[in-house]
Amino acid sequence: MPSYKAPVDDALFLLNDVFHLDRYGNLPGFADASPDVVEAVLREAGKFSEQVLTPLNRVGDKEGCTRHPDGSVTTPTGFKDAFKQLVAGGWIGISAPVEYGGQGLPATLTEAVNEFLCSSNQAFAMYAGLTQGAIAALLEHASQELKTRYLPKMVEGVWTGTMNLTEPHCGTDLGLLRSKAVKQSDGSYRITGTKIFISAGEHDLAENIIHLVIARIEGAPMGTKGISLFVVPKILVNDDGSLGKPNGVSCGSIEEKMGIHGNSTCVMNYDGATGWLVGEENRGLNAMFTMMNEARLGVGVQGLAQSEVAYQNAALYAKERLQGRALSGAKYPDKPADPIIVHADVRRTLLTIRAFNEAARALLIWTSLHGDVARRSEDGKERQAADDAMGLLTPVVKGVLTDTGFANTVMAQQMFGGHGYIAEHGMEQFVRDARIAMIYEGANGIQALDLVGRKLGKDGGRALMAFFNEVGAFIKDKSADEAMKPYLTPLSAALAHLQAASMWFMQNAMAKPDNAGAGATDYMHMFGLVALGYMWARIAEAAAAKAKSNGAAAPMKAKLVTARFFMERMLPETAAHLARIQAGAGSIMELPEEAF
Amino acid sequence: MPSYKAPVDDALFLLNDVFHLDRYGNLPGFADASPDVVEAVLREAGKFSEQVLTPLNRVGDKEGCTRHPDGSVTTPTGFKDAFKQLVAGGWIGISAPVEYGGQGLPATLTEAVNEFLCSSNQAFAMYAGLTQGAIAALLEHASQELKTRYLPKMVEGVWTGTMNLTEPHCGTDLGLLRSKAVKQSDGSYRITGTKIFISAGEHDLAENIIHLVIARIEGAPMGTKGISLFVVPKILVNDDGSLGKPNGVSCGSIEEKMGIHGNSTCVMNYDGATGWLVGEENRGLNAMFTMMNEARLGVGVQGLAQSEVAYQNAALYAKERLQGRALSGAKYPDKPADPIIVHADVRRTLLTIRAFNEAARALLIWTSLHGDVARRSEDGKERQAADDAMGLLTPVVKGVLTDTGFANTVMAQQMFGGHGYIAEHGMEQFVRDARIAMIYEGANGIQALDLVGRKLGKDGGRALMAFFNEVGAFIKDKSADEAMKPYLTPLSAALAHLQAASMWFMQNAMAKPDNAGAGATDYMHMFGLVALGYMWARIAEAAAAKAKSNGAAAPMKAKLVTARFFMERMLPETAAHLARIQAGAGSIMELPEEAF
Repeated sequence: MPSYKAPVDDALFLLNDVFHLDRYGNLPGFADASPDVVEAVLREAGKFSEQVLTPLNRVGDKEGCTRHPDGSVTTPTGFKDAFKQLVAGGWIGISAPVEYGGQGLPATLTEAVNEFLCSSNQAFAMYAGLTQGAIAALLEHASQELKTRYLPKMVEGVWTGTMNLTEPHCGTDLGLLRSKAVKQSDGSYRITGTKIFISAGEHDLAENIIHLVIARIEGAPMGTKGISLFVVPKILVNDDGSLGKPNGVSCGSIEEKMGIHGNSTCVMNYDGATGWLVGEENRGLNAMFTMMNEARLGVGVQGLAQSEVAYQNAALYAKERLQGRALSGAKYPDKPADPIIVHADVRRTLLTIRAFNEAARALLIWTSLHGDVARRSEDGKERQAADDAMGLLTPVVKGVLTDTGFANTVMAQQMFGGHGYIAEHGMEQFVRDARIAMIYEGANGIQALDLVGRKLGKDGGRALMAFFNEVGAFIKDKSADEAMKPYLTPLSAALAHLQAASMWFMQNAMAKPDNAGAGATDYMHMFGLVALGYMWARIAEAAAAKAKSNGAAAPMKAKLVTARFFMERMLPETAAHLARIQAGAGSIMELPEEAF
Repeated sequence: MPSYKAPVDDALFLLNDVFHLDRYGNLPGFADASPDVVEAVLREAGKFSEQVLTPLNRVGDKEGCTRHPDGSVTTPTGFKDAFKQLVAGGWIGISAPVEYGGQGLPATLTEAVNEFLCSSNQAFAMYAGLTQGAIAALLEHASQELKTRYLPKMVEGVWTGTMNLTEPHCGTDLGLLRSKAVKQSDGSYRITGTKIFISAGEHDLAENIIHLVIARIEGAPMGTKGISLFVVPKILVNDDGSLGKPNGVSCGSIEEKMGIHGNSTCVMNYDGATGWLVGEENRGLNAMFTMMNEARLGVGVQGLAQSEVAYQNAALYAKERLQGRALSGAKYPDKPADPIIVHADVRRTLLTIRAFNEAARALLIWTSLHGDVARRSEDGKERQAADDAMGLLTPVVKGVLTDTGFANTVMAQQMFGGHGYIAEHGMEQFVRDARIAMIYEGANGIQALDLVGRKLGKDGGRALMAFFNEVGAFIKDKSADEAMKPYLTPLSAALAHLQAASMWFMQNAMAKPDNAGAGATDYMHMFGLVALGYMWARIAEAAAAKAKSNGAAAPMKAKLVTARFFMERMLPETAAHLARIQAGAGSIMELPEEAF
């Protein structure tokens, strides 16, 4: 069975030493996030993940969810009890507003905790994660009445949330959706339609399930401008907050899928279900985007989370598995063979994963901090800058962390040879579970198009320029420090590649948008490499300083070596991305469709 | 359900127009392989794959194999009947010697046929593929008596074969193996031990199963120099060829694994089973290598095969799935949305897969032709050169075609969005099935080490120099042709990168072998890119010539555009590989083991 140890120390190092959480004390909620509180929260979350959720991961995969003839769904053995513990620990609402029962702590802390939950049991963590996304959408767009009615129970976790977008014929292109809403005299709506791929759509973990559903109000315009968002509870909620009658919504079937078997992915049938409008009519997509942006970061977390747990197990295995001898001669002549970690190719693989993981964790924390500032700062300019950064980084975090996270689970599985292909060690489950993150909440190709087509040019490229300026200023500031050279020189080259690619789009994609489409995925990954490289440079700076403290020399040295590995072997890939981008759309658009 | 159309025309183009099968007429068996015969064989194999095996692929995945309490194993519904048809068609023995009932046709033809079988149903094709590997080992190493006793039935296919190497504690390092053989007075041996991960170890498709098993003869030296190979039939074979008593070998359990569920992967228990020595005592590894080299090419075929069928389904889906509009404006304004193939990012993905597939098919045919020459030529020098090429190319074919083949199934799955993650379309099965090919017959890291550690320097680098010379000569020969420039210029640059990397190993890996280990995987992929680039250059030359023939303009133009795509977007990756190789083992070997 796979094991897991939550990387609490690493998260604390990032929060305290790299990003200096204490400097954000002026933001609401941050004053409560003292180093002691943060450490206590993370250690507790780590323990819960390691001890309660990790042992349930294979159980969940093996058993999956079961739909009964009456439409009810049973989750795998142990999930119900674990969810009770999650609720008792208040984990869903640690960053939710105090007025709805949350703890009001920074959202950054929720991201850090969610990594642990997802590493130990992604299928389980999704029940909570979707609830957090639904809370975010209601907080931002719902009327006070709806908030008061639904949020406290959701923040507590006794009710969970879902997100109902996809229909059989439309996923990416929501303008095609057919679900209908008919306004009733009491102001509510009757919702009718079929939604597919609804994660946590029906289950036995909560007393009620609050579905957020997009549908077209009778008579609304076609396309995306006629979409409205509704809250549709599984069980109607009386005015006094008690549960009333079942609503007209049911689970039609559970999808048979590649992984995350412990999460019930449902076909949901809305059959004249009663729903209430969230936000304005025909502005549903707008509200949905709040939820999706939240969710996209959360999916990025999943990419890192699977990569991390896969790394940990691969590293343990590499130190235990005896097979062959080191190329330079036996390292353990007293053993029948050397552990495979003596091999450079094995270490290269492990370092490739780890050099991603540590920087990805930093990137998530850094992005989440922008999110906290965007939501909580009282300074309008600061809010805008943070919001810019969030918008720019969200598709990168989602696309790059899940593509790379998945690739890393495959590499970690490879360490096990044939033992990685069988279910026993749990490595193949990590691969199957990680795979979904590249798809849902907008397939990664869509993230790349969002980045290149929308985010780059937005507000005259303001967000992009700010990113370039920040990285550039960091390089300039630290350039006098000789010890920083091995990190700054490659980062500087990679930044130049990214700038050249951005410039190339400006010059070549206006008149010919296919040039943007042809280079979008390369650009997203290139951007990710530069962002991760910037994170490594900041980590290196902090690690070099901390290496002098008591007991920190070894872990900090490991960070410096890993940073160098990233700079030497991973970051230079930006050159190949640039070359591909500059190749343009020529050969790509030349063939007629029937030639494919 | 996924569909499949065997790429018969493409295989014929490669055999006839690119590699000119007719020029090999002097080799035994090639004279019989007239264009008519070759086309008939391929069309028939294609039909069988499309009509019989494709519909069984999801069935096999869903049902898997069942072990009964008596140790017998039932294959999925339909497999037994399909295997009867395979035997009736003589497909296992098309390249086997006529004296044992085969058709004696080029082994190249078997590789081409096996691609179709694996695309349509890899789990099924493995039963036949392992039999072919066992036939090859017996042909080369067994006594005449053993050959006469076992080969005719195996060539016919009424008996199948297996390969028993791995034990619970040893996979890569066979020197650690514990299975024992004790010589009996009649010259036979009693074999005792446990083997794991034995594909097709027990099933209901054949009257008998001929296991090839490695074990250590009592008193033999430790390590790889004390390993012998034995033939151990499931049912003992009487002198008259009839079946006798069951032997002491049984299936202990079937592994629960990620994919290829239709193939029974068994734990095999040998409990004083009677076996006969194949080849000399303590020279078993040598004999096993024949089988493994054969098998490694076969596994490379699987990489291409899954990539090809995944491509076909992704291309069909991209032309059907309506979602969004082209960036340059609606292409199908009369439809509710454009098919997703209008998007550059979708085409880029499809072309990336296809540019690999066509060149990989060429590389397999080219490598197999070397194999035919090595086995059949009467000219010793020609045989040696062909054998050199086979040795050099085998790890590249195995490692690169399976790594890339797997990555391609993931990309093809991505085209389907959420529909790719559920079982219905079969895309996630391609991913799970393709995954094993990176692991078995020597995990790809081992292939890379074999290439860099053994094959590069062998015989003073003779094979490598011959490869460089051939590619270099082709570039020089064709350089006067202006139309070939877009292919030759990038190929020339990539070849220079490969030569620089080879030189770097010569200068830096002798004294410090970890420098070789650290760059091995990059080198293997770089070599693969150059080999595929060479294939594309040869394809481009043939396609340009053929484009003038009747009706060939469109498919040949597609090849030329795809070749350009490969040259512009895929081949330049050699630069990144070179940079990583030249970074050396420094940061990789620096950390102590406990830091991982």
